[in-house]
Amino acid sequence: MTDHPHTRLGRTVGANSGPVVGMVGAGQLARMTAAAAVTLGIDFRVLAAGARESAAQVCAGTVIGDYRSAADLKAFAADCDVLTFDHEHVPGPLLAELEGAGHVLRPAPSALRFTQDKLAMRERLTTLGVHCPRYAIAADLADVTGFAAIGGWPVVLKAIYGGYDGRGVWVCASPAEAAEVLAHGLDLMVEEHVPFERELAILVARAPSGQGAAYPVVQTVQQDGICREVLAPAPGLAPGTAAAAQRLGLAIARDLGVTGLLAVELFDTPDGLIVNELAMRPHNCGHWTIEGSVTSQFEQHLRAILDLPLGSPVQARRHAAMANLLGGENPDLRSGLPHVLAADPAVKVHLYGKQVRPGRKLGHVTALGHDPAVVRKRAMRAASYLADGVEDP
Amino acid sequence: MTDHPHTRLGRTVGANSGPVVGMVGAGQLARMTAAAAVTLGIDFRVLAAGARESAAQVCAGTVIGDYRSAADLKAFAADCDVLTFDHEHVPGPLLAELEGAGHVLRPAPSALRFTQDKLAMRERLTTLGVHCPRYAIAADLADVTGFAAIGGWPVVLKAIYGGYDGRGVWVCASPAEAAEVLAHGLDLMVEEHVPFERELAILVARAPSGQGAAYPVVQTVQQDGICREVLAPAPGLAPGTAAAAQRLGLAIARDLGVTGLLAVELFDTPDGLIVNELAMRPHNCGHWTIEGSVTSQFEQHLRAILDLPLGSPVQARRHAAMANLLGGENPDLRSGLPHVLAADPAVKVHLYGKQVRPGRKLGHVTALGHDPAVVRKRAMRAASYLADGVEDP
Repeated sequence: MTDHPHTRLGRTVGANSGPVVGMVGAGQLARMTAAAAVTLGIDFRVLAAGARESAAQVCAGTVIGDYRSAADLKAFAADCDVLTFDHEHVPGPLLAELEGAGHVLRPAPSALRFTQDKLAMRERLTTLGVHCPRYAIAADLADVTGFAAIGGWPVVLKAIYGGYDGRGVWVCASPAEAAEVLAHGLDLMVEEHVPFERELAILVARAPSGQGAAYPVVQTVQQDGICREVLAPAPGLAPGTAAAAQRLGLAIARDLGVTGLLAVELFDTPDGLIVNELAMRPHNCGHWTIEGSVTSQFEQHLRAILDLPLGSPVQARRHAAMANLLGGENPDLRSGLPHVLAADPAVKVHLYGKQVRPGRKLGHVTALGHDPAVVRKRAMRAASYLADGVEDP
Repeated sequence: MTDHPHTRLGRTVGANSGPVVGMVGAGQLARMTAAAAVTLGIDFRVLAAGARESAAQVCAGTVIGDYRSAADLKAFAADCDVLTFDHEHVPGPLLAELEGAGHVLRPAPSALRFTQDKLAMRERLTTLGVHCPRYAIAADLADVTGFAAIGGWPVVLKAIYGGYDGRGVWVCASPAEAAEVLAHGLDLMVEEHVPFERELAILVARAPSGQGAAYPVVQTVQQDGICREVLAPAPGLAPGTAAAAQRLGLAIARDLGVTGLLAVELFDTPDGLIVNELAMRPHNCGHWTIEGSVTSQFEQHLRAILDLPLGSPVQARRHAAMANLLGGENPDLRSGLPHVLAADPAVKVHLYGKQVRPGRKLGHVTALGHDPAVVRKRAMRAASYLADGVEDP
């Protein structure tokens, strides 16, 4: 033991320093992970495109660089013991290069690719016997019309690479609409348009040791492909179905070799649960866990990627509702804070420090309580007021 | 509204930026306040003596400077809309100078002086009719022996200025012991040695608007003048006594004009509650509120000093216990984490990033639950294990 800093792996660290965690990307997920790292005393860095990014504003360990640049990634990785990600956009070849150079990536590129390549994801999940929408490659219009000839219109066209938050997903009602999407020149696949009753999400964590932990299954409410609300637990979900969904999440995490968090977005249909998307990082469906669960998803992700024992994912209060604060008519979110906080002293407001733009995720609000309808109303009311600066009519 | 940063008060801010809060001091209180500021989207700065201080390690808005330097304080204040403090050690004349220059200090110097000058505090509280220990100025040994002639030995000698965490407090059993303390040449006062049954603490917040909020009264367990444990709510405290204590805290905050948090340390005696010390900042007695209350003390302090409506101080789970992690035999706190987290997946560990030194506050552990004896054991077990690297015998 020494009181003087010493050098380890070329870094200056204190005697009581633990591993350095580096997160590629500096959006709100990195920002909230940074706050969890403060609590656990973890030396946490983010690779940010600029100093005004959400996490860069608050994280002392901010490095400015481009996640598409091999040189920037390598320089960042050199100072970190474990690399993780707040998005899926780091090109696969760069991930492979980092791993080849001996860096520890969690999740590993072999798992991450199933979030970057939707076709590979569908093929792998289908192999595993997981219920997915019917799908096919859509190289040209004939592929799409052939696919629609079996299941009918509309169909869903998806960019195989790079989509998120509803971007890269098109519901096409006719060959003409499909042709328009095909004209973008992207690598596309076509999927059946699943007539779901609602959307659910499973969030699980898996550590390199193999330990897994599943959060309660939640309902997500989307609008224009963007998450508006999350209700935890999913209202009215049969306990057996919820447990089966949790087991499904844990099984996918295990089978894909995920380390860290895995979010599985699901369609709830009369024929059962159908997997829509995967993400391997903290996820919007888990923001409610900050106050609503014994262990927040951000702390859980850090524990998982550091191979620490996972925290209890149990829900702390009977019901939680999370409403996203999307950019609206109010140019200054803070102007609504006095009203919102006075009206509901128990509502939890999270602001990400981002510039207001219509539809942009700028923050979220969580409410906890015993009555699911009431907590939902409280969260939405606060988020709407902040976004628009007036009460909802 | 604009997407381009503009200059306000000489600072570059984004269109969606709120007020800048600057905290003088960068210990663990500033570190945990920084995490709360991240959530609320508050631009938060700390004035740190060095980059390795607890809050400086994590806070992007760290400014290095000396809190005893008028120039450093002024430069720091110039970039902040509201100044607040993680300790009571900024010299009064410098506080007055900052206020005179138009800076907003919360709490104001007129309130803070009652935490810096224990004699002034006793005089003011006595005037307010608050029950305090009997006290007198102790300029020389005759003052002390004269005081002891009335109430007997032992007596308590206290430094009027600058004490904290048991420093600056001496229990003297004889004139010889008192003479030894007097030889230090400090400004001293003498107080009766109160034969208390236990120690309690009240934590309240007060906003400039006048709004006040009181947390549940807690029991604090001290050892060698340092807090070891906090139990919330204080076990077995009669509801009427608890409510009276909360009202006392709110009344003191109002009467002293406190803005932000006020912690009142109390002796619980057969003759009732006696006020021991005051602090006007987040306080060790409130660490349990991070997970145990709807609103953490750190968020509450920020809301209070920004004159935002206060959050609900209600306890989220029936019982909470907080155990301080004091430096012990284990030179590497992290070595115990796998064991502690595996043994109790619901315990919440907070590490402050500080070098291990015997007796130093390095972190804390909070446990929540229904059985007060169980939560107390869980928190202490985890804290002891981390401190010593082995199970308590």
